[in-house]
This record gives sequence, C-alpha cells and structure tokens, in this order.
Amino acid sequence: MNEKTVEIGMLPKGARNKISDVPGVLVGHATIDTENHKTGVTVVLPPGKNPFTEKLVGASFVLNGFGKTQGLVQVEELGTIETPIALTNTLNVGIVHDALVEYMIHVCNLDGVRLTSVNPIVCECNDASLNDIQNRAVTKTHVFSAIENACADFEEGDVGCGKGTTCHGLKGGVGSASRVITIDGQIFTLGVLAQTNHGSMRDLRLNGEPVGERIFESLRDHKPDKGSCIMIVATDLPVTDRQLKRIIKRCAIGLVRPGSYLGHGSGDVFIGFSTANRILSDAPDISDTRILKESKLDLAFRACGEAAEEAVIKSMLNASSVSGFGGNTRASLKEFFL
Amino acid sequence: MNEKTVEIGMLPKGARNKISDVPGVLVGHATIDTENHKTGVTVVLPPGKNPFTEKLVGASFVLNGFGKTQGLVQVEELGTIETPIALTNTLNVGIVHDALVEYMIHVCNLDGVRLTSVNPIVCECNDASLNDIQNRAVTKTHVFSAIENACADFEEGDVGCGKGTTCHGLKGGVGSASRVITIDGQIFTLGVLAQTNHGSMRDLRLNGEPVGERIFESLRDHKPDKGSCIMIVATDLPVTDRQLKRIIKRCAIGLVRPGSYLGHGSGDVFIGFSTANRILSDAPDISDTRILKESKLDLAFRACGEAAEEAVIKSMLNASSVSGFGGNTRASLKEFFL
Amino acid sequence: MNEKTVEIGMLPKGARNKISDVPGVLVGHATIDTENHKTGVTVVLPPGKNPFTEKLVGASFVLNGFGKTQGLVQVEELGTIETPIALTNTLNVGIVHDALVEYMIHVCNLDGVRLTSVNPIVCECNDASLNDIQNRAVTKTHVFSAIENACADFEEGDVGCGKGTTCHGLKGGVGSASRVITIDGQIFTLGVLAQTNHGSMRDLRLNGEPVGERIFESLRDHKPDKGSCIMIVATDLPVTDRQLKRIIKRCAIGLVRPGSYLGHGSGDVFIGFSTANRILSDAPDISDTRILKESKLDLAFRACGEAAEEAVIKSMLNASSVSGFGGNTRASLKEFFL
Amino acid sequence: MNEKTVEIGMLPKGARNKISDVPGVLVGHATIDTENHKTGVTVVLPPGKNPFTEKLVGASFVLNGFGKTQGLVQVEELGTIETPIALTNTLNVGIVHDALVEYMIHVCNLDGVRLTSVNPIVCECNDASLNDIQNRAVTKTHVFSAIENACADFEEGDVGCGKGTTCHGLKGGVGSASRVITIDGQIFTLGVLAQTNHGSMRDLRLNGEPVGERIFESLRDHKPDKGSCIMIVATDLPVTDRQLKRIIKRCAIGLVRPGSYLGHGSGDVFIGFSTANRILSDAPDISDTRILKESKLDLAFRACGEAAEEAVIKSMLNASSVSGFGGNTRASLKEFFL
Repeated sequence: MNEKTVEIGMLPKGARNKISDVPGVLVGHATIDTENHKTGVTVVLPPGKNPFTEKLVGASFVLNGFGKTQGLVQVEELGTIETPIALTNTLNVGIVHDALVEYMIHVCNLDGVRLTSVNPIVCECNDASLNDIQNRAVTKTHVFSAIENACADFEEGDVGCGKGTTCHGLKGGVGSASRVITIDGQIFTLGVLAQTNHGSMRDLRLNGEPVGERIFESLRDHKPDKGSCIMIVATDLPVTDRQLKRIIKRCAIGLVRPGSYLGHGSGDVFIGFSTANRILSDAPDISDTRILKESKLDLAFRACGEAAEEAVIKSMLNASSVSGFGGNTRASLKEFFL
Repeated sequence: MNEKTVEIGMLPKGARNKISDVPGVLVGHATIDTENHKTGVTVVLPPGKNPFTEKLVGASFVLNGFGKTQGLVQVEELGTIETPIALTNTLNVGIVHDALVEYMIHVCNLDGVRLTSVNPIVCECNDASLNDIQNRAVTKTHVFSAIENACADFEEGDVGCGKGTTCHGLKGGVGSASRVITIDGQIFTLGVLAQTNHGSMRDLRLNGEPVGERIFESLRDHKPDKGSCIMIVATDLPVTDRQLKRIIKRCAIGLVRPGSYLGHGSGDVFIGFSTANRILSDAPDISDTRILKESKLDLAFRACGEAAEEAVIKSMLNASSVSGFGGNTRASLKEFFL
Repeated sequence: MNEKTVEIGMLPKGARNKISDVPGVLVGHATIDTENHKTGVTVVLPPGKNPFTEKLVGASFVLNGFGKTQGLVQVEELGTIETPIALTNTLNVGIVHDALVEYMIHVCNLDGVRLTSVNPIVCECNDASLNDIQNRAVTKTHVFSAIENACADFEEGDVGCGKGTTCHGLKGGVGSASRVITIDGQIFTLGVLAQTNHGSMRDLRLNGEPVGERIFESLRDHKPDKGSCIMIVATDLPVTDRQLKRIIKRCAIGLVRPGSYLGHGSGDVFIGFSTANRILSDAPDISDTRILKESKLDLAFRACGEAAEEAVIKSMLNASSVSGFGGNTRASLKEFFL
Repeated sequence: MNEKTVEIGMLPKGARNKISDVPGVLVGHATIDTENHKTGVTVVLPPGKNPFTEKLVGASFVLNGFGKTQGLVQVEELGTIETPIALTNTLNVGIVHDALVEYMIHVCNLDGVRLTSVNPIVCECNDASLNDIQNRAVTKTHVFSAIENACADFEEGDVGCGKGTTCHGLKGGVGSASRVITIDGQIFTLGVLAQTNHGSMRDLRLNGEPVGERIFESLRDHKPDKGSCIMIVATDLPVTDRQLKRIIKRCAIGLVRPGSYLGHGSGDVFIGFSTANRILSDAPDISDTRILKESKLDLAFRACGEAAEEAVIKSMLNASSVSGFGGNTRASLKEFFL
C-alpha cells in the first residue's frame, strides 16, 4: 500500500491533489532538523499580494479546544482572514505571531498603508516528543523564509511544522489533498492541508481497514491519543463565512475515519478561507457578492470530508521515520507497506 | 452478518447493551402504524420521580443544525435538564412539547409543587417519506402512553420515533448501545440512544467494510444524504455540564464511521445527561459535588464514540422493511445479510 | 413625563416609531383578558406572502438563556427565518408552535407547495404572576386571529403577549420603536419590538434618571429581577446573518440602560431578520447578493441600541395597570408621571 | 466630581475597591513613557505560586470580537486558566505571549516540572493614537518586571497597558473596582480590572448624567467609538466555569451604562477566574468540589455589573492628560470637574 493505492471517496482530485490546486494558494516550509530540534513552521498563503487590504472570507471551527491557536476571536466576529496562516509548535506561537506582525507591516508599507492593527493566525501542534520544545527554535527568520519559499508544489510529510509530530503512534507531519466539484457548469476546487499529531496506534484505519491493530502487534508500542490536528481549508467556492464554517466542520471526517476518538489532549482546530470574494478596504458601502445556494453545499461537504481524510493519510505516507530529542523515534507508516 | 457479529470498538458493553444500562434510565415508545402513518414518539426517562425538583446535569451539542429540536437554549445556559426527553417527527414537536408541559404539571402537582415554568426537550427527525407528516398523527395520549410504557428492555428498530425514518437509504429507526468503563476502581456506564434518519446508501460502511456500495449495486436506489440523526447520551459519570458536552460531541463518531458526510439537510443534534449529581431545589447555597478529573475523560470519549456507532448500526439491524405513505418502501439492512 | 417627552439617543425615528416602519413588516395581537387570564399572543409578520418559499436572512442572540424560545437551532445553522415570529407565555409555546405549523401548511398549500418541514419561531415570557399559566389559555385560534389582525399601526402596552408581563416591578408589555439611518445616500430603517418582563423596581432609570428608587419609596414593593425580555429586530439593511447577529446583540443596551442587571431568571433572547435579500427556493445555484460594508455597521448598532431602549420604555408607558390571577396587581408607570 | 463622589450601585465595596480585594490577587504594571511610546504591559496574577500545577476555574466571554486576545480556545474547552493574564497593545501580543511562556517554564522548573505545553492569556487594546505601535516597544523584560512589581495596591489610570489608551475621546487607562457580597453567612468578593479604549465623547454618561455632551460642546473634538475594552474579573465565589461565564457576561453593563454603543471596531473581551477551587495536577480521579447554587448568582451578577461600570469610570478619573506619538493629546476627564 502507498499513496497511490489509497482511495478515499468518489470525487475527482485536483491536478496536484494539494491545497495549492485552489488557484493562487501557496504553501511554504522552514524545517529545523538538528539533534535536539525536529520542528519548523509552515505557512499557507492566500492569493493576492496583500491579504490585509484584500481580505478573504474566513471561518474557524474548534472541534476540541485543548490548543493554543491564535486569531480566532476576530475570525469569528468578522468572518475574514487578513494574514497568511502559520503553523508551528506549541511554545513558538508567540514568536511566530510577532513575525507575522512584522511581515504584514512590511507588506502594507509597500502598499503605502500604515498598519496599526492586524490579526495574525497562528496554529500549533505539540512536537515535544521529538523536539526540545522549551527552546522555541523557530525564529522570525524561519517564518520569513517559509513565506519566501512558498510554492504550489510543496513537500509533504516530515517537513515544516510537521517535522516533529506524531500521528497514531507513527510519524505524522504535513499532508494535503484536494477535490474538484462542478456546480452550475463551473468547476470549483477545495483543498485541505493537515498538520497531524493525533490518534493512537491501535485505532488507525486506512480506508476502513484496521491496519493499526496489526502494526501494534508487531511494535507493541502504545501512546495515548493526544497531540492535536490542525486542518486548513481553502476553496474558490463563493461562500459566506457561515457557509464556510459549515464546510470546514466536515474536517472532522478526516480525523474520525482513520480512527481517532478525538482525544482529550488534542487541539483539533479547523480554519478555512474562500478566495472567491475579496473584501476590499475601498469597497463601496453596499456591494454585490456572489453567494452559493445553501443546498449546493452538500458537494462541498463531501469534498471537504474526503480531502481531509486523505490529507491525514498522506501526512503519514509521505513522512520518513524520525529520531529526535531524548532519543525518541517515530516510525514511518511506509515501513509497514513497502 | 447480524447484530451479534458486528463488533464496534474494544470496550466492554453493558448487560443489555442499551442506554438503560445506566441505572434508572428507562425508554418508552408509542408507535403509530397505519396505512398513511408510520411515526410515533419515544421518550427517554431520567431516573427519579420528578426531574423538575431533582434536575440532572445536562448538555447539548448541535453538529448540524438543520433541525427543530426544542429546549436547547436553557440547557446551554443552565447546564441542566428538568423533563423527560421526547423524540418524534418534525411537525409534531409542538404537540409533544405541550404534552410534556402537561405531564410535568401533573408530576409536580403530586409533589405539591405548582409548576409555572418548565423546559421540555423535544427532538425530531423527518419521516415524511413513509409518514403523512402534515397530519401530526402524534397526540398527547401517545406521549403519555410512551412514558407509561417506559422500561429498561425496550425495543429497537422501526418503533416509536423510528417507525418512519430512513438511514443510508434503508430502514432506519431507534438503536441503542452502551459501554462500561472503570475509573479509580469504580464502574461507570455510558449509553446512547439514536433516532437515525441520515446518510446515503452508497456511503454505508459496517465496521469499515463498504457494504453500501454493494447494496446500491443490487438496488440501484439512490436517495440524498438528508434527514437527521438525534443521539441521546446518558451516563452515571460525575461530570460537569462542560465535560458532558465534550463527551457527547463524540457522537459524531457514530455518524461518520458508518459513512455519513454530515449532509446539509440533516439536523444532527446530541443531548446528554448525567445521573450522578442531582441539582435539588432545596439544596444549600453552597454544596459539595463530585467531579471527574478532566484527563479521565478520554475513556468516556471512547465509550461515547463506540456506543454511538453501534447504536446507529443497531437501529438498522433491528428494523424490518416498512412500506408507508405514498407507497414508498424502505428495505431492511437485515435482508442483505440473513 | 410621557412617551413624547422621553428622548433616547440622537438618531431620527421612523414615521410610526415602530418596527412596522420597516416596509412590509406587520404586527398582530390576540389578547386574553379574563378574571384569571391575562395573556395572549403577538405575531411579527415579515413582508411577503410566503416566508417559507421566500426566506429572509435571520439571526438570533441569547443574552441570558433561562428561557424556552423555539427555533433557534436552525436559525443559527442556516441564517434564515421561514415563518412569522410568535410571542406568547411560557407554557403555551408548544400549542403556538403547532399553530404556526398549521398556518404554514396552509400558506404553502395556496402556493401549491407540499410542506413537510418548517421551523416556527416561538418566543415567550412568563406571565404567571397575573395569568393562570397552567391552563395554556392561548389556542391555535388566537394565533390565527393575531396573524389575521396584523397591521402596521398596532397597539403597544398591555396587549397580546404583553397582557400579563411585569417590567421593573411595574406593568410591562409590548413596546416598539424605530430608527432611520442613511448610508450611501439611501435611507434604511431598523425597528425593534420588545416583550418586557424583566428588571426590578429600584433599578429602573428613564434616560439615566433613577426614577425606580423614587417609585419604590412610595410603593415599598419589591420583586426580584426575573422574568424575561424578548426583542425582535427588523431592518431593510442588506446584511448577512453574521452582520445581523452583531446588530441585534446591541439590544442588550435596551435592557441595561433602563436599569436591568440581566438577572439569572431572565430569558433574554433577541431575534432579527432583514427584508433586503430574500432566499428563494428557485434561486440559481450562485446568485448576486447586496451586502453592507462591515465598517458601516456602526450606525446600525446605534440604531438598534436606541430603538431597543425606547421599545422597553414604551412598553411601560403604554401599559395600563392590570390586576389578574391571584389578585395580583401591577401598577402602570404612567401613574407616577401623569 | 471625582472618584469619591461617583456612586455606582448599592453593594458595598471591598477595602481597596480594586480587583486585589479578592484574596491573593495581585496586579503589576510596566509603563513605557517616551516621546513616541505611550504603552506598556499590565499583569493580573492569580493567587498561588504556580498557576500551571494549581489551575483555576476560568471563563471568557467575547462581547465584540474585533480584537486579538490570545488563549481563549483552551479556556473555552477546559474552563481553566494556567498562567497570569497579561494586557498590552495590539501589536505586542506575540512578544508578550513568548514572555509568558518563558516565565511559566521558569516557574515550573522551580517546581521540578518540565513544561512542554502552556496556554498564556494575552489581551490587548490599540493605543496607536498615542503610541508608535509598529515598534512593539514592550519587550520580555517589561513583562517580567510587571510580574515582579505586582502588588495589591497597584496604580490606576495612565499606567501599564493603559498608558496610551483612549476612552470616550478622553484619556482612558486602567481602572479597577470591587464589590462584597454575603451568601449563606460567608463573605465573598468580586473584583474587576478594566483596560479602557472605547466609546465616543458625546455618549459619555457618569452615573446616568450626560456629561459627554457638555464636554463635547467645550472641546468640539469627535472621535469614533473604536478601540476596545478588556475586563478581567476575579472572585472567590465557588463557581463552575459555566457559572463564571454567566457572571462575567455582566461586564457588558460596565460598557453600556457609561454610554458605549459597543462599536464595530471594539474588541470587547471579558475574562474571569475563581480562586475558590484549584484544579491540582495530582488530584484524585474523582474529587469533591464546592459549587454555588445557581439561583444565588443574581448577587454576583449585580456585583459584576457595578464593579465593571465603576472600573471604567475610575480608569478615566485616575488618568492624567497624555500627549504622545504624532503630537496627539488625550485630555483627562478630571480636568472637567476639578
């Protein structure tokens, strides 16, 4: 079994089968890979040069809130995002937040805008089992570098914010998938990027098959279902923030199908944005906005569920085994199939 | 395959494998089975003679709110339930609500309490494909009869509120399951009762196996993922309303594992209560309450997920085929395995 | 002091200074005024013949949830309302709910639509201190009559759902007010209707002046801050459901300014709808919608706060003294000023 | 008029009339007062040496979410706080977050606990009209210094996080007040600390009196109702997180009574903690907890409303006029009364 043989759902995939299939969305990593540090930062860049002056419709859903994600208060109130979304380790959110502030001041300066308020979104998983997390190894430079390196053909697996994570007792990481749907003759894309750090080994299922039990029998290695899972959803569907929240809620499917029981210690947070309608600073007082009919959301729900499940599995199938801080090792799922 | 061969999860089941394994919890049905009406009412009775003077810790979670469940505003604010919980069809919630008001006035009168305010909880699924729903066939008499008939060994399948429902394109109904967990040397039970009316045929999975695709090939009968799913959770774990909300959120597992994509048209609502701590009208101003340690919730989460999944599957395996209003028929899942 | 001398805020009022200043919005009462019953029902009718086939953008906000309002689960999920909004007493919500179901079946039949699912919104206050509430005196006939009698020049004070309510220890009732705002050269109206049943006498303030303390000195009559306050907000501003929720939250101002401390026993629930954008059943999959710029909401916030405060005060200034069940009396605020 | 002559409400005040009247609660400031920088940090320290190993019951309520407060996701899920609460300017939240991480690692080290996950709470107001906010002048050193200087007799007015804020067009700042209530013969205290940066001048009312209109007439200086208001609530009442959330919601009274219309641009966020029940890491699986009877919350609601209103007014009456960045000046409310 490998990435090519895992079949999730029935909808067609995008060209890259990644979140970057949504036109204009880019992803960048900065990976820290030293003896004591297996960590990093990953950024998801919405299309456009300045997300502050061209805000996007955004939404969040917290499935389990034992986590430290920043920026959701404003996303909930205003239904927009106005910065790139950064993912990192638990104790680094403050520094990464400050880096996004600095980046946005710079971007706005280029546009002649003096920025005095901005709402960075920073998500996190706890990679302390492979990373000396107290040191906060991620610096502002890593964030700027991840932004600069952002591209459509980004790597998956044990890179960026996924370098040190653990999923179902094996090596987790960054995974991504996409689905393409057709509404009213137009083609739309929905993509998911996951930072996976959740689940216990015995519960793991690949497309329904209980492979975790088998791996557990050979390894006899049991870790509790803790950690977290962050999912970022991008789409070019013309949806409102409320509709978007309904869509991203279906990321839960991507956690549950592969076997998670949504453990207490897991910060399972989903954040989405739509690239269809920009909210411009200089928009007229009342403007026309394209909005999808509510009953047409069903296809988007399915697309989100399928892409989320596949993103979780791809995060594991693309990760190599990693040994890190304290001599801990997380084996790759690949080892049990190749 | 039948109920006895479906194995969900790893935790031990309660003696009856029903919500009534939680001591004191009873369930009653009133079923309406005429040519045009396949509908009814089901009540879940908490322990104790008068839930108004001895309120229970309660919680609700709305996974998808395309539904008409009544009573949640107060459950959210006060974290208690104070009536039996009734389940019926969509257009009958008003009448059933009035019946619960009348019942509670009666119960309080027996206690010498003049009731002037009460918060009935009424849940619903839409059974219009087998039931002439506009007639609102459920009357107050049915509600009183269901309460009177409540017992621990209640029936599952196409009874009560489940007489006319459709699950994954086949006959849905009422299903229930329970799990037993041990914490600190004490044994606790968590049980789930489901009214199932959701999912599409091709998506159905039994314990991971994609049986829906096979059934679809033989029937070629496709209905959209609409309807709803109501889950009632009872437990004797000493939890706060916040902890209880966290637990019942895991009912989502019971929808997702058997294949639902949480369709737009589905009112997926979960309601829970704990029988451990009663809130008495004549309690002192400050009183001691037993509370479970937060990190011990993991076992309860797993118990809830396993019981919810099994309740959904039992609702189908215990239902016979039903033909009703407009000549529509819903085939039983049993037919494909026996 | 009387209604004409109370000056709340700085924005201009609508022609009637009522919720019906929003074009097309009508209000109807059915009042029950017998020895033991001081109660009734009030309906707020959105414009248009069939709110089910022409849904309106809707939103709700629960400031204090010790109440039994029905229908909010779906309003939250879908951001629409699809029936008239009915207000009545606490124990009558079930019967009034059933009446709205029947009414909507009828309305849809006229349009050739077979209705099998509908989400009535029913709000309530507890009028048990003047009304023999256990009898549920409001019947379906009262609801139909209130709908039939709906008009723009409706009465305020001790009528309809406000016949038996108590506000700040004095006679409460139904009050309404409106404000007119200009955005981008266009004129928009926002109106509030309040069912007032909250507050304690000593806390009452009229436009900042502590009149309650004075009235209390003369009456020496103290009742706890219980009961509830329902506020219905209508506007023709082209807002999304999220924006509308932000607007109606400002109804809190109408409770707090006249002196309420938002007591424990109060179900303070706000529901709003916009008449600007209808959601049609036969709309195309993607359609253009006019939406107000977020930063322009400030004027709407102020309009809502001012109208809500004035609606509360008008509910009292328009109510006469009422004696009812158990020989209880609630004095009119008018008595202390005329 | 001055602080001594403003009378808010009817409940008795604590000895200091500050949040530090709640036993063990301390407050510390670090103020930055240079030509271009009027800003700082304020910390509220819960009692006890290590809030991570002895967590407190906590709650949050977002009245208007146009703000960047960090840490609320976990507070909502777990109902606890585990760090001091820091307040600063909008663009400094990331750095202050990192400082709290460092501080908590240090505190836990002293206890022999290796900290790998922690949820700092950082709140903010935007002081850009007096402070060159882009420079993020607050450093980790300021945070450590504020913690070190924390005391019960802390300063109010234009200090710490309030050095550069604007309230009702005049100089805002930090204000605090407390109320004492008796339940079942025991004395309990509730205190509020406010960082005020909201409201417009013409709307200002002192205890009902429209003083803002008068000041506006003399100054003719109008600024929009933007900025934010943060309120921190501490109490020794034995309440659950749900009860605490109900209490702190009444901080809205403290915004509305003095005249705010809860403007669009305001991040109005309330955070509370109870010192009564600590959640210990080494607690047994099930333990007894003292809990207040729900109906006794009314007194706490009133205490919170009164203290919140007075805290807002004290923030202004204790602040001197400040001139800062860009030559802007905010006049002190004192100037108009002394």
